[in-house]
Amino acid sequence: MIPMNLLAGGTADYVHTGEWAKKAIKEAKLFGTVNVAGSSEDKNFCYIPAQKWSANAKYAHITSNETIGGIQWRVYPDTGSVPLVADMSSDIFCRPIDVSRFGLIYAGAQKNIGPSGVTLVIIRKDLVENGASGLTTMLSYKPYAENDSMYNTPPTFGIYMIKLVMEWMEAQGGVAAIYEKNKEKAKLLYSCIDTLDMYQGTANPVDRSLMNVTFRLKSEDLETLFLKEASAAGFVGLKGHRSVGGCRASIYNAMTLDHIKVLISFMEDFAKKNA
Amino acid sequence: MIPMNLLAGGTADYVHTGEWAKKAIKEAKLFGTVNVAGSSEDKNFCYIPAQKWSANAKYAHITSNETIGGIQWRVYPDTGSVPLVADMSSDIFCRPIDVSRFGLIYAGAQKNIGPSGVTLVIIRKDLVENGASGLTTMLSYKPYAENDSMYNTPPTFGIYMIKLVMEWMEAQGGVAAIYEKNKEKAKLLYSCIDTLDMYQGTANPVDRSLMNVTFRLKSEDLETLFLKEASAAGFVGLKGHRSVGGCRASIYNAMTLDHIKVLISFMEDFAKKNA
Repeated sequence: MIPMNLLAGGTADYVHTGEWAKKAIKEAKLFGTVNVAGSSEDKNFCYIPAQKWSANAKYAHITSNETIGGIQWRVYPDTGSVPLVADMSSDIFCRPIDVSRFGLIYAGAQKNIGPSGVTLVIIRKDLVENGASGLTTMLSYKPYAENDSMYNTPPTFGIYMIKLVMEWMEAQGGVAAIYEKNKEKAKLLYSCIDTLDMYQGTANPVDRSLMNVTFRLKSEDLETLFLKEASAAGFVGLKGHRSVGGCRASIYNAMTLDHIKVLISFMEDFAKKNA
Repeated sequence: MIPMNLLAGGTADYVHTGEWAKKAIKEAKLFGTVNVAGSSEDKNFCYIPAQKWSANAKYAHITSNETIGGIQWRVYPDTGSVPLVADMSSDIFCRPIDVSRFGLIYAGAQKNIGPSGVTLVIIRKDLVENGASGLTTMLSYKPYAENDSMYNTPPTFGIYMIKLVMEWMEAQGGVAAIYEKNKEKAKLLYSCIDTLDMYQGTANPVDRSLMNVTFRLKSEDLETLFLKEASAAGFVGLKGHRSVGGCRASIYNAMTLDHIKVLISFMEDFAKKNA
């Protein structure tokens, strides 16, 4: 919807940081010119690349967290008067953000918000007003903005579940408190990886994600054994994406510090046994 | 998505039977030429109009049930070699249908299927294969068909709830048994309306909907009183759509025969008191 509404034949800057950025670029090309303002494809998307922004872009697009490479924008870029657009699907609400710095934020609900099937969009009013005309009703931001997101029947039960998640977040102390916990969780886990010879983090340290912790073991045989024993011990989903291999611990808001400590304890035991 | 994928600059036939058909026609016009093959606008959409189909249409579109006018296609039209496309959002699973007669069936879940936010699509394989190219990935039927509807993360919890509804339907004896109950429910309610002088059905008798029973009272004052007393007695949502006024009982699959009997009893009492 973003290129349909905001690109409309013009040029937009996209930073290519991995699989999700790649999909966004592919779709945007159907509606205008894409300038790749930076790419970390050369090193299998293990870092956030430097950017070269266009002056006349309709918008600048980033993917705030890449789940596969395990990298995250720690500091959001300054794109001047060009509206910054961010796909925050996999890290929204992991930390407080200054919404006023963005032209548009979008996020699928299924990581930190609630059930899949709901998408959150925060868009600046002038971008709604100046959006392309002649679009299909449900693919234009205007009818959503003008009808409080209820032009059609919204996914009511999903939204109800999101209300429960929001209440849970408030009970945790809000996003600021959740951020502190997320930093602590990630610090402990990366520290385990950095300390033990068995493990090797794959993401550039300064760009490491708070949500997706990617690492390799000393050999592929050991990775296979690690994943097998982890699964037997109740740790599911630790296998890295097939495009990069290795291991990945996704530690979204719903994961507690205790969960992380149990995982670290398992990783320490495994390293000792297989030293 | 239908005009995007299947119209692509050609001509399509649409039967104009009310608000939902109107919205479908509006969107289709963005992607090609619409031939209105029949319309009941002259009588406020109280009947299913005769149709004059084009020979060269890409498809022929009907709205199988119109919730506002309370009319329903009792017999589906024969459109020859032109694929028949039906919006069955408000009456799917109210009766058995011969799916092989349709090129495409689509239905929002929120009436007889499950929670809002899920849409069911049944599409003939050749229509998927011959669909327009160059579309946004999520707006083309191909990626859905090729990935078992899981190219992206589908609305998992909504689909789980639909599984529960499907199990409930099977426990009821399946769609054939539900159809018998729906006929009995509608027969009793329309019979009450036809028998009592107080009420007047608004839909053409042969086109009356099994799902949405629309009627008027002898005066608008009586309608106001009826709706007020009905609400006090626990019957909500009996007010007709603002575009037509009057009253409407929506008796989807979830409404039991007992519910209908209680409503009829209330309507009989009201008629007696206000004779």
